[in-house]
Amino acid sequence: MNMRTSRASATRELILTAAERLFAEHGVFAVSNRQVSEAAEQGNNTAVGYHFGTKADLVRAIARKHSGQIEGIRQRMVASLDERSDLRAWIACLIRPTTEHLEELGNPTWYGRFSAQVTTDPSLRQIMFEESRSSPSLVRITAAFNRLLPDLPDEVRAERRDMSRQLMVHMVAERERALADGTPTPRSSWRHTADGLIDALVGLWLAPVS
Amino acid sequence: MNMRTSRASATRELILTAAERLFAEHGVFAVSNRQVSEAAEQGNNTAVGYHFGTKADLVRAIARKHSGQIEGIRQRMVASLDERSDLRAWIACLIRPTTEHLEELGNPTWYGRFSAQVTTDPSLRQIMFEESRSSPSLVRITAAFNRLLPDLPDEVRAERRDMSRQLMVHMVAERERALADGTPTPRSSWRHTADGLIDALVGLWLAPVS
Repeated sequence: MNMRTSRASATRELILTAAERLFAEHGVFAVSNRQVSEAAEQGNNTAVGYHFGTKADLVRAIARKHSGQIEGIRQRMVASLDERSDLRAWIACLIRPTTEHLEELGNPTWYGRFSAQVTTDPSLRQIMFEESRSSPSLVRITAAFNRLLPDLPDEVRAERRDMSRQLMVHMVAERERALADGTPTPRSSWRHTADGLIDALVGLWLAPVS
Repeated sequence: MNMRTSRASATRELILTAAERLFAEHGVFAVSNRQVSEAAEQGNNTAVGYHFGTKADLVRAIARKHSGQIEGIRQRMVASLDERSDLRAWIACLIRPTTEHLEELGNPTWYGRFSAQVTTDPSLRQIMFEESRSSPSLVRITAAFNRLLPDLPDEVRAERRDMSRQLMVHMVAERERALADGTPTPRSSWRHTADGLIDALVGLWLAPVS
């Protein structure tokens, strides 16, 4: 990498970090590209436009950075399982890659609140889906659910997959927000937060269908 | 009510309906008060400011309108239960008031997507909490959970209450969005959506704590 591209890459990284933080704290739409450029200490307040493009492009770059790292953890976890692994082990592969990633980043993190907003926003939610659709490890997890819960009707399986995703995204955001605000959290660490979510999701997936 | 107040009240209603729809479809922050005034066919495009105040005041008025109606249904449901009622019956009181309210409104609805955004937004989420904190029926439901699940540690009860709320808000928004977009939904009606959520939440609440 020559000096020019290395500097551009450092600038991009500064912008990504500033944007993620401002979006988490104030809301993706409340913050302008100009404010992001200023917070990233770019003399030129059109830096976001120059390095990323639109707000949606910036959101995609943030999502991609984290989802790539989370996918890495998930692939290692999935690779350690086999046909004798139980439901709980596969559910853990849905939850722990994200909580481990946040644990590694160290407090404060912003990605949890960022993802919850992006997942909920009508114009941005597609970005999160595109980033996860291409995940090879999620395909393997889905196949394991099909194999382990053969009697669950397909539409209930789809519904519970969706429930698992919503719970993960929004409970992680809640905890991150509580940590940022200094309000009490039900669990003392990301690891134990994952334990609570996995317990609950095992019950949710095994619940009889009425 | 004289003609002047009756007209002001009709205008407020037009603005609330226009705002809810625009917020659901395009995002609470992507839509300006001016656009809401125009969509409500108010010649004066400062009508939102005049009748409500800020964006946050408008959001609160929308939330309050629906939460009042939902609380009415929930109070009737809670009144029909007693000490012999089981966990499933109490869980139903968390879910069915909202799904029945949406069913009564008839397709298309916007409140589901609106609430999911407001619950997730850093500057607006407090509004949703304030609207639900004052609910007498939710207090009775919480007491029933404490009575029926005495062995669950307090912090796990708090965590699962939060999970129940998150699941309800976001699964309802998902279904509403799918109906609006004409994409497939796992259930054929709001009533059956509630069945699926209640099944899942019974499993979630009864799940052993590891």
